[in-house]
Amino acid sequence: MIGIKDVAKHAGVAIGTVSRVINNHSTVNPEIRERVLKSIEELNYIPDEVARSFKLRTTKMVAFLIPSIWNPFFSELAHYVEDELDKNGYKLLLCNSGGKPEKEKYYLEMLKQNKVAGILGITYNQHQNEINSKIPFVSIDRLFSEDVPCVTSDNYNGGQLAAQNLIECGCTNIAFIGKNSSINSEVDKREIGFYDKAIEMGISPIIYDFNDFEDEYTICREFFLKYPNLDGIFVKTDLLAATYIKVLTENGVRVPQDVKVIGYDGIQNNNLFHPILTTIRQPVEEIGREAVTLLLKKINNIEIDDYIVRIPVHLKKGETV
Amino acid sequence: MIGIKDVAKHAGVAIGTVSRVINNHSTVNPEIRERVLKSIEELNYIPDEVARSFKLRTTKMVAFLIPSIWNPFFSELAHYVEDELDKNGYKLLLCNSGGKPEKEKYYLEMLKQNKVAGILGITYNQHQNEINSKIPFVSIDRLFSEDVPCVTSDNYNGGQLAAQNLIECGCTNIAFIGKNSSINSEVDKREIGFYDKAIEMGISPIIYDFNDFEDEYTICREFFLKYPNLDGIFVKTDLLAATYIKVLTENGVRVPQDVKVIGYDGIQNNNLFHPILTTIRQPVEEIGREAVTLLLKKINNIEIDDYIVRIPVHLKKGETV
Repeated sequence: MIGIKDVAKHAGVAIGTVSRVINNHSTVNPEIRERVLKSIEELNYIPDEVARSFKLRTTKMVAFLIPSIWNPFFSELAHYVEDELDKNGYKLLLCNSGGKPEKEKYYLEMLKQNKVAGILGITYNQHQNEINSKIPFVSIDRLFSEDVPCVTSDNYNGGQLAAQNLIECGCTNIAFIGKNSSINSEVDKREIGFYDKAIEMGISPIIYDFNDFEDEYTICREFFLKYPNLDGIFVKTDLLAATYIKVLTENGVRVPQDVKVIGYDGIQNNNLFHPILTTIRQPVEEIGREAVTLLLKKINNIEIDDYIVRIPVHLKKGETV
Repeated sequence: MIGIKDVAKHAGVAIGTVSRVINNHSTVNPEIRERVLKSIEELNYIPDEVARSFKLRTTKMVAFLIPSIWNPFFSELAHYVEDELDKNGYKLLLCNSGGKPEKEKYYLEMLKQNKVAGILGITYNQHQNEINSKIPFVSIDRLFSEDVPCVTSDNYNGGQLAAQNLIECGCTNIAFIGKNSSINSEVDKREIGFYDKAIEMGISPIIYDFNDFEDEYTICREFFLKYPNLDGIFVKTDLLAATYIKVLTENGVRVPQDVKVIGYDGIQNNNLFHPILTTIRQPVEEIGREAVTLLLKKINNIEIDDYIVRIPVHLKKGETV
């Protein structure tokens, strides 16, 4: 933390001089005054009175950390988050972290300095030291620990719904394919719910996880060549599902006649582009509004009953099952 | 503007008492101190020193006004705007105005109070009194006046490219359809460029504008029933183009065999969903980065050479021509 002493040293003046500049006394030589102001700016020094008064006024800003706003799921989420914040008099600071921890750390630092009131985030980075129950932070999709609020769709039940639907439609040779989360994430429960339900219904599914750095199209091709006789597949996200369908189509496999495909997210909000995916629809509006509600409780020190809120999902019928 | 006198009156104390509270003197009775702090908060009073020191520190925040982040064009734009701002040490405040002038006015007010350094905006509202050459504001798509910087795609040339391409592909019975902007907008030049080029090439096109409140699907149906024999159509936006293609398909008309369709925007960034539109692609990244560059010049009082920047566009081939 930069103090008045640092400013004095930087400007080469006495502490009293800095104080007189800050308090706008007329007794300071204009040249020296200029030099001190420059040092204040360069060192990013915040006079105590400013810091104090700044604290008096509630900061009505919330940072929203997401990998990228360009992703249709995140932009829909941001739409509702902004709307809910606005209703409560808060503004939204957008951070596309692109998975960069240093960018996310900057906002955590702003939170410490009281420049934002809270953070809502989808972060796939490790911030175990910075994110804890004491700071107003609400996580989406990722469970940090039991005492950091988290809002997510009911991923486990989503996976169950997918397995049940494929099997009820007559599929007997089913699989799951999805990108591995580098950290322990709620979204991985899609796979577990799918597996559990399939086993419960007497079918043993193939489960295929791949890594972050691998190309999705290549992975889908390899997977298809390895398992050409599947008749039903649950894909971790809609975009990956569409990629898989592209590979199937290129290989003369018809969807849904030969293979049924279910995605997860529900990113298509019109019926203009095909295939219209059958998918487990994220309750995006509810996730966004609930996350804001929890965050405002944290900000205002209101007790939170449930730290993990899993919002029910449903299967949205499209053209691919 | 709330002054120290107002605070004193509100708290029922002398001005000197307020001053002592602000400067954290120990001579103030704790109860009175509490009362004064409450008044400061309620009146949203900013002590002069705070205001001054606040000004010393450059506010590194820019507000981004758009109708809705949910729209794929705006979310792509926001992605690049945030990236370019971040490179320059600025943060992005997101405002989905939803066309609400009062929400936009709030950010203009923040700008006046120095709480944001500048505003980047796609606003379809009238703010002639608030937006002028003196404030750091950069408009996207909409031309306010000659002295407010504006970045846009070359809409006129985009319209020309669409006409030229349809006619070169053999279309002789062509039309334009698009929603009217309520205000004089750069995007209306799509229609003018299309018309001019068609006339220049010896074809007289049908031009059809409709109003904001009308339903796009209904309009497309009515238009198709009125002009069933068109063989080429330029549609003002991609989403409207997809809606028109849906109507054509429902009526047994094949695209592109019977009718060729060109959109504008280029919202599809993968080849996973069909139809893959032939479209005039917005140079979204360049628009976003250029708009930020101009805004930073405005913020830092650097002279701007061109107040209207029209970025070249190109035709992106898809499946619909």
